[in-house]
Amino acid sequence: MSDLKQKILAAVREDLVCVEKALADHLHPHFELVGQVAGHLLFAGGKRLRPLLMMRASRLCGCEKEDLAQFAVIFEYLHAATLMHDDVVDGARLRRGKAVAHNVWDPPTAVLTGDFLLARSLSLAARTGLPEVIEVIAGITEQMSQGEIRQLAHKGDVALGETIYLDVIRCKTAVLFQGACRTGALIAAAAPDQAAAMDAYGFHLGLAFQMADDLLDYTQSTADLGKAAGADLREGKLTLPVIRTLEQAEEADRVWIEALIRNPDFSTAEFERLIALMGDYGGIEYTRQCAADHVRQAKEALGGFEDNDHRRLLCDIAEYAWSRSS
Amino acid sequence: MSDLKQKILAAVREDLVCVEKALADHLHPHFELVGQVAGHLLFAGGKRLRPLLMMRASRLCGCEKEDLAQFAVIFEYLHAATLMHDDVVDGARLRRGKAVAHNVWDPPTAVLTGDFLLARSLSLAARTGLPEVIEVIAGITEQMSQGEIRQLAHKGDVALGETIYLDVIRCKTAVLFQGACRTGALIAAAAPDQAAAMDAYGFHLGLAFQMADDLLDYTQSTADLGKAAGADLREGKLTLPVIRTLEQAEEADRVWIEALIRNPDFSTAEFERLIALMGDYGGIEYTRQCAADHVRQAKEALGGFEDNDHRRLLCDIAEYAWSRSS
Repeated sequence: MSDLKQKILAAVREDLVCVEKALADHLHPHFELVGQVAGHLLFAGGKRLRPLLMMRASRLCGCEKEDLAQFAVIFEYLHAATLMHDDVVDGARLRRGKAVAHNVWDPPTAVLTGDFLLARSLSLAARTGLPEVIEVIAGITEQMSQGEIRQLAHKGDVALGETIYLDVIRCKTAVLFQGACRTGALIAAAAPDQAAAMDAYGFHLGLAFQMADDLLDYTQSTADLGKAAGADLREGKLTLPVIRTLEQAEEADRVWIEALIRNPDFSTAEFERLIALMGDYGGIEYTRQCAADHVRQAKEALGGFEDNDHRRLLCDIAEYAWSRSS
Repeated sequence: MSDLKQKILAAVREDLVCVEKALADHLHPHFELVGQVAGHLLFAGGKRLRPLLMMRASRLCGCEKEDLAQFAVIFEYLHAATLMHDDVVDGARLRRGKAVAHNVWDPPTAVLTGDFLLARSLSLAARTGLPEVIEVIAGITEQMSQGEIRQLAHKGDVALGETIYLDVIRCKTAVLFQGACRTGALIAAAAPDQAAAMDAYGFHLGLAFQMADDLLDYTQSTADLGKAAGADLREGKLTLPVIRTLEQAEEADRVWIEALIRNPDFSTAEFERLIALMGDYGGIEYTRQCAADHVRQAKEALGGFEDNDHRRLLCDIAEYAWSRSS
């Protein structure tokens, strides 16, 4: 484990205990099977990054409430709901190293449990009593579903450019980070400029995080990933490392890569050649730089806040989001 | 068309125009495909019963707002979201006489469009600025997803009794009617006893409505239904007419019916024999009586309100819910 990761984990240990407790406390469906299916994904070792962001964003904005975790779990339930639906949509087999819920049970049960988790996150949002928070959270879900549909509509589209890619990852990832950080500020009754700064931090962090995640599919093994390497490409999902490589590649290499994308049954040797080309044409390096640039912007967004433990942790998390990819 | 249906339609003509307009006005996703998929189901001739209930419940509680339709559509979006997910879950082929969205497009797109509609209904709920309304609406979704999962878990279960059946239809249907009526009262800032009366009206109406709906599967042709007759049984869904028949049937007939339930490829002749047995053992009649009893309770719940056009319309709707089944 990297020093940075250890440092972050040590700093959030107490928060994590509260989040884990709140996740179990607030689940309680009235039908037991729902709890089992939801728990299968929820308690399979997620990082709880989104709830932690909300809690620290709130504290950095001056909130001294003790029970922040009960609202913070909104973002983990929401995240779990979308993971569950995405896995059905993508026909995924592994998630966090475990068989996906739609295979352990069946796709209908996974879809409906996702609906339950979505609804539970909105019920908890309602309990904040803050209509602005509820609008943020309902808005996140609207954007995320649209981002996923857009991604689906462009499945296998070799002409997908950076603009659409950025819009897709904004919708499917950044809005949730952004919403968690904004909600933290709103719960702290922060001034509008502080809420906007938190929003910007979450937005850039989310983009950097997704770019790093998209890199992992080309830089890590199946065992490290907890899901199949090269899965994005097999599902027809073009991400920035590939998009950039296609833009930069010479004709013959571009044609070869496009043919690979159209054939989801590519061999390990073919996948390795693709990775070599991504190195040669700078697709990997370019993505890393874009992610680093968003990390820089995320940290800059926090410039107006007091330099305290909360701010330093949020900066460390931004650094970590990026360092995962290298 | 029955006289009662004509009378109701004449009374709600203006409300319907407002609801149709609001449904189109508030949809506007930022990605066009989402609007097409959502519109495929939304604008395929639904009755708009749930929005109409909310509007009239609100007016009966004294609300004089002109723009009720913008909140009333919450319940149509929510209904459409659950229909879209249910059709995927059930592997249905027809809905309102049209091919289902998951066949016109694909199941992933239908799941994600359902998520979008769910989120849109919660965004509109947030705009009421009333946390109590938001809690009601998030609660509806929680209950509905659990009702569907429970139904799924009991697929083909010949031992399903009336108690579980009632809990399933309460969750999957009655809570939405109940929530629409309660929300109408809350938007009117009604006194708690008025809100409770509206809630009770919606609850009993919802149960009666679902029982009548469950009867239609055994009393109407595919053309009249707009979906395949006998579909419930083919999907392993045991509803009250069958549950009651099984309870009342003599050993030999009960065994024959149970065998039919286990074989979803039953012939038309077998289905007709089942319907004859449901008549003989009173399964049809019993369900009709249960529905009539809930219609009576729905109307009684409105007893404390002034006898005006709104109350008369709500009573007519309750009568109509029942009359559909005969």
